[in-house]
Amino acid sequence: MPYVNIKITNEGVTSEQKKQLIEGATNLLRDVLGKNPQTTVVVIDEVETDNWGIGGEQVTDRRKRGQ
Amino acid sequence: MPYVNIKITNEGVTSEQKKQLIEGATNLLRDVLGKNPQTTVVVIDEVETDNWGIGGEQVTDRRKRGQ
Amino acid sequence: MPYVNIKITNEGVTSEQKKQLIEGATNLLRDVLGKNPQTTVVVIDEVETDNWGIGGEQVTDRRKRGQ
Amino acid sequence: MPYVNIKITNEGVTSEQKKQLIEGATNLLRDVLGKNPQTTVVVIDEVETDNWGIGGEQVTDRRKRGQ
Amino acid sequence: MPYVNIKITNEGVTSEQKKQLIEGATNLLRDVLGKNPQTTVVVIDEVETDNWGIGGEQVTDRRKRGQ
Amino acid sequence: MPYVNIKITNEGVTSEQKKQLIEGATNLLRDVLGKNPQTTVVVIDEVETDNWGIGGEQVTDRRKRGQ
Repeated sequence: MPYVNIKITNEGVTSEQKKQLIEGATNLLRDVLGKNPQTTVVVIDEVETDNWGIGGEQVTDRRKRGQ
Repeated sequence: MPYVNIKITNEGVTSEQKKQLIEGATNLLRDVLGKNPQTTVVVIDEVETDNWGIGGEQVTDRRKRGQ
Repeated sequence: MPYVNIKITNEGVTSEQKKQLIEGATNLLRDVLGKNPQTTVVVIDEVETDNWGIGGEQVTDRRKRGQ
Repeated sequence: MPYVNIKITNEGVTSEQKKQLIEGATNLLRDVLGKNPQTTVVVIDEVETDNWGIGGEQVTDRRKRGQ
Repeated sequence: MPYVNIKITNEGVTSEQKKQLIEGATNLLRDVLGKNPQTTVVVIDEVETDNWGIGGEQVTDRRKRGQ
Repeated sequence: MPYVNIKITNEGVTSEQKKQLIEGATNLLRDVLGKNPQTTVVVIDEVETDNWGIGGEQVTDRRKRGQ
């Protein structure tokens, strides 16, 4: 029954990688808390780098500086 | 003043259906808790089937099996 | 498979009212989009009135003025 | 370490405006609570006007009436 | 920089289990997407069983039936 | 109409500080995007330090080391 939301920047994540995130998060809840995988929900949000800020600046600008 | 967030998979939901979700959620809060519809906010997020997991797998894969 | 999050102020909502919100939201998704109630998740967050703002002020202060 | 999520309607917000939202929210947490800007995260979600409801109706319809 | 939110029912999760969820989610993002663990944020929300619904009913009621 | 969610650790934030966060976030949306303060909603979530992770560890542990 757990609900897991993963927010990442939209920078070319593949469908295969999303599959691994979904499997991994579901297994984590099963292994640590014994949660039933059948009712665990995982939602991945891909956020544009212009819309994500850290340290007071857009990730777009950090990427330009190679960070 | 309530805030309702509805997350669904992005599979051809029409504008008319969204209208019904917004009306329905707003009326629900009014009927059950007496909340003023004028300040009830409803936000609908449509999530790609690759980005939604249940039972440890992507909805995309479930749809391929007819689920 | 939908996920519905309802945020309301923490002002004496009863367990029976929460039950009605859960039923109502689940039925809404079934009626409008044909979603399977068995996998619809509803999470209710009750937020202290000091922690909820609208119109630039705390709900606590609005309540004191009878709003 | 704070996490700030700003949800707005998708109506032509520029990259420069997003930059100002990120800076402003980060500075707000620093000024009020002394939070370290380096680990403050801000995520902006732009939501289609069909997917945002207030007063029981879609923002799309409100905009048509000039609201 | 990823942000992970884990919502679970409030049913006696220990501090040690939370530690494992935080480590596990952080490692998952590093392993699958190469994300820097130093800026990965994980927030765990524990939700009362009265406030969590699945299948149109409160988890509290499901627990009473042994589910 | 914007919705702002501020998540911070639960470490003695006063009602007055919450008031300043609500005012500040509401003014930010007005100043940058011309949003009407009357319909701007701000919700503050205070999260236990055991439930917040960064760098793969609980904030509780970081605080013990003076971070």
